[in-house]
Amino acid sequence: MAYELHYWPTIQGRGEFVRLALEAANAPYVDVARQDPAQGGGEGALTRHLRAAGNPHPPFAPPYLVNGDFVVGQTSAILLYLGPRLGLCGANERDALWTHQLQLTVADVVAEAHDTHHPLSVSMYYADQKDAALVRAKAFREERIPKYLDWFELALQRNPDGDLHLVGNALTYADLSLFQLVEGLRYAFPKATARALKNAPAVEKLHANVRRRQRVAQYLQSERRIAFNEDGIFRRYPELDA
Amino acid sequence: MAYELHYWPTIQGRGEFVRLALEAANAPYVDVARQDPAQGGGEGALTRHLRAAGNPHPPFAPPYLVNGDFVVGQTSAILLYLGPRLGLCGANERDALWTHQLQLTVADVVAEAHDTHHPLSVSMYYADQKDAALVRAKAFREERIPKYLDWFELALQRNPDGDLHLVGNALTYADLSLFQLVEGLRYAFPKATARALKNAPAVEKLHANVRRRQRVAQYLQSERRIAFNEDGIFRRYPELDA
Repeated sequence: MAYELHYWPTIQGRGEFVRLALEAANAPYVDVARQDPAQGGGEGALTRHLRAAGNPHPPFAPPYLVNGDFVVGQTSAILLYLGPRLGLCGANERDALWTHQLQLTVADVVAEAHDTHHPLSVSMYYADQKDAALVRAKAFREERIPKYLDWFELALQRNPDGDLHLVGNALTYADLSLFQLVEGLRYAFPKATARALKNAPAVEKLHANVRRRQRVAQYLQSERRIAFNEDGIFRRYPELDA
Repeated sequence: MAYELHYWPTIQGRGEFVRLALEAANAPYVDVARQDPAQGGGEGALTRHLRAAGNPHPPFAPPYLVNGDFVVGQTSAILLYLGPRLGLCGANERDALWTHQLQLTVADVVAEAHDTHHPLSVSMYYADQKDAALVRAKAFREERIPKYLDWFELALQRNPDGDLHLVGNALTYADLSLFQLVEGLRYAFPKATARALKNAPAVEKLHANVRRRQRVAQYLQSERRIAFNEDGIFRRYPELDA
């Protein structure tokens, strides 16, 4: 039976971390909200299932994954569930936990990247919090992006199996998520990210290697990959980059 | 062998979620940075161990937990590791994953609570971002606290084993973390939290029940419990509450 991914149909957002894991593992899945509303898709389906009666584990927000009668929300928890099923979390408990620790740190950067354009409130327009966004984005560019990428660089350099992967010597969801993080940072903050990557050559190499993996490359060229846009988490507002 | 918890010695912060799990399970542990610097404690030890050579899994930031030669960082990953060892994550994979999903959502609220007083940059003083803090805190009080507490209320109401626990019919780290979240929200936003809890009676009851558990109560009355203060995540700045 195919996994059901439930996420906003017009953005990469947090759902993209799940999509990448499913795509890289060639797992059968349906991106439910992107199906025809007449056939049970659309945003209506997304919100309808979110708090569906009878589910003892209602997700707080998309993305959530459905597998038969099982529902799990929170991006990092979804990947924790999929990791062993898709062979994307290393060989033992320590590797699986390290994979998850790396994922949680990617999630922290993602939340901070979002707040560069919405530092005051998610329910206010960007234009109405732009002054604050300029300050927050500067701090993110100058302090946070380098600090995070330096740490991922250290994680790669410390890998006893070499710096081609974050965990062991094979692909994990941590590699895929770091790839996606670099994609997003490069889209939203091209200048600042280029600077930070100069000090993180192994991160840049990992990004390039993931990008050219056969299944990932096919996915990125397909219609299933939604383009970055200014409704998502990573937004290209030129005034926020420098 | 005792677990080593490494965290800032003068705040509850994110380390408190780990302390509560260790305390509630009566697990032997050393709060390393709170020991005498002459005996290997203090903040020097905290930063020294953070990137210690030879550790293939260097944490990004405190808190981190050391168990023999094993090191794990990220609050939620630490609890994922401790959960089965301390008997605090339910009876099976589904319960463990739900426990973790709940924890990740607590972590999201904690990050948002932090940003109410530091919406622009962690390296700027509160006084220099107070105008932005007033706006962000208002959105947090009016939109986010109710939304999150309503969801935890729903989670309790949906528990097939009853609303005394978030997962099954026994204590998990999700219960402990929700307790701590309510503690922190009540400290920082007493008025707004009281209002939101009126619509979340099961959350309020869970908080009270956790508080009077024997080991938790003993811990809270001990010197091991650091008082809330304005260096931590939850800060009582009266102008941010209403």
